[in-house]
Amino acid sequence: MDFGGGKEGEFGFIRHLRERFEKGEGVEVGLGDDAAVLHIGGERLLFTTDMMVEGVHFDSAYTAADCLGSKAIACNVSDIAAMGGRPLFAVVSVAFPRGPQSIDPYGLVDGLQDGSRMYSVALVGGDTTSGPALTISVAMIGSVSAAGPVLRSGAREGDLLCVTGTVGDAAAGLQLMKSPGDSGERKRFATLIQAHDYGRARVREGTAAASCGVTAMIDVSDGVGTDANHLAEESGLGLEVRVENLPLSHELRDAASEMGLDAHRLAVSGGEDYELLMAIHPHDVDMLRDAVAPTPLTVIGEFTKGGERFARWPDGSKTPLEGLGWDHFR
Amino acid sequence: MDFGGGKEGEFGFIRHLRERFEKGEGVEVGLGDDAAVLHIGGERLLFTTDMMVEGVHFDSAYTAADCLGSKAIACNVSDIAAMGGRPLFAVVSVAFPRGPQSIDPYGLVDGLQDGSRMYSVALVGGDTTSGPALTISVAMIGSVSAAGPVLRSGAREGDLLCVTGTVGDAAAGLQLMKSPGDSGERKRFATLIQAHDYGRARVREGTAAASCGVTAMIDVSDGVGTDANHLAEESGLGLEVRVENLPLSHELRDAASEMGLDAHRLAVSGGEDYELLMAIHPHDVDMLRDAVAPTPLTVIGEFTKGGERFARWPDGSKTPLEGLGWDHFR
Repeated sequence: MDFGGGKEGEFGFIRHLRERFEKGEGVEVGLGDDAAVLHIGGERLLFTTDMMVEGVHFDSAYTAADCLGSKAIACNVSDIAAMGGRPLFAVVSVAFPRGPQSIDPYGLVDGLQDGSRMYSVALVGGDTTSGPALTISVAMIGSVSAAGPVLRSGAREGDLLCVTGTVGDAAAGLQLMKSPGDSGERKRFATLIQAHDYGRARVREGTAAASCGVTAMIDVSDGVGTDANHLAEESGLGLEVRVENLPLSHELRDAASEMGLDAHRLAVSGGEDYELLMAIHPHDVDMLRDAVAPTPLTVIGEFTKGGERFARWPDGSKTPLEGLGWDHFR
Repeated sequence: MDFGGGKEGEFGFIRHLRERFEKGEGVEVGLGDDAAVLHIGGERLLFTTDMMVEGVHFDSAYTAADCLGSKAIACNVSDIAAMGGRPLFAVVSVAFPRGPQSIDPYGLVDGLQDGSRMYSVALVGGDTTSGPALTISVAMIGSVSAAGPVLRSGAREGDLLCVTGTVGDAAAGLQLMKSPGDSGERKRFATLIQAHDYGRARVREGTAAASCGVTAMIDVSDGVGTDANHLAEESGLGLEVRVENLPLSHELRDAASEMGLDAHRLAVSGGEDYELLMAIHPHDVDMLRDAVAPTPLTVIGEFTKGGERFARWPDGSKTPLEGLGWDHFR
């Protein structure tokens, strides 16, 4: 689920929903985390939804239909992973534009199938309609082990902020696809485009993290800055993110240098990496690193008492985390 | 879930999904019914989704924001009811147009809250984004008793087709709202407009029907003609729907007569009534009528061997059921 960046949409719609909807019976966690946590009979389930709209989340000029289907599944899986859970079942609603399609509908089905297989999710229902722009909304049910769920709100003063894998690759991939002409560049940096098109949700790492006692977790869907800010805000803490510590791939460094872009800025603001941000006690970092291996784990910040939440740039300057991310309410 | 009318959308998208997605582990019923039936641990759950798009499912010129929120909940509840289940939890994704809103977002929240309270559904998650048209997608989890679930595919030769309540009221209400000027007419036929704006899903009737052994069930979302056709098609049977037997309200008859519309045609083709269509053995009809009372139950047709599925009009003429309904893929 996406609770927006600093602006949280023009109406703070989800915040408003959250204020208005009290927790019902069987609701352990309702609105406001990556997924809801529900009790049904003897089971504890996760429930989440994400919507993708053409012209906002994707542009059919750069996005293949199968990438889109696969991504619609992956972004929901990533929300489930960020709770320490495993995905089980999905339903999908699609609005297709009338007339000629910018995206091949059967390619979209291919992608939904690829994503479902990759994450062992059963796609069990759907709805189609027409609409002015291709819109794909997936909702997903997941399970969570006794070690979970891991919420956004559990970080403690002195906890370290860690991130899996590398960040900024998907954002750089998007820049490459948008940049006119140079197909050689695109070929050389295919891993970045791959990162954007087929970003892989971190289910194994999320469940491992839950078992290691991480205190808070979120997936990087709107950018490290925005999503780290959510963790700190929900935990009532301050946070310093050290930008120079962000794990950057060689490809990202090379591509940014060739394209004249700031790799660190892409890494802190770029969305859709589907890496996991975790808060953990300093004593437990090595255990966590072993548990998520071979996926790299990097310490990129520290939670502090008091309200200031900022990115420290390599030149020593500071920027508030709020508003640093990738806002889909553009 | 909406599997479309005769046209099933330009691409038969859901049919294509259904062919491609084999049933996974824990999936008792996947794509192709009002809701999926899932096994999670010791529990049996229902899972469904419905998407509403401005300009397709509603027009902000006639639709108040709270009606819209309430309807987004009700149409999913109706899918759960049509399986013989009870709704439990919902998530909602909304795309808002940029700039001035045609619908008050806070009114939309009011409606979501009204709907949630009316049906005892907990709204536990959401996603917001921007998009060219207001789009609301709800997904819902429900429970089902040991008597359920009731599928679309279980009708048997000789079973009678029954419908709860009255049909065509919502379609007439929409016509009234669309007709220019006459506010006196609108006032006089307020119950029809009410039927369109606040159509009530039949949860109690659906669970009662499951206990009475109805063999197949579906809700009237796309019109009696289209939805009855789904029941017969999925059950591999023919069906005669006797249009003169359709239960019409006095208000519908009066309004149709004043507006020069054919009440029977509104009743057979109009969508969004949220009444339930049920197939049941002739011996069990009286028991079923008692079980759903005080809601009326009317026998409107009979399932037959062989493929012909048609509406018999009061003048004796026949029309194939396929294509009689309200197609959202317009």
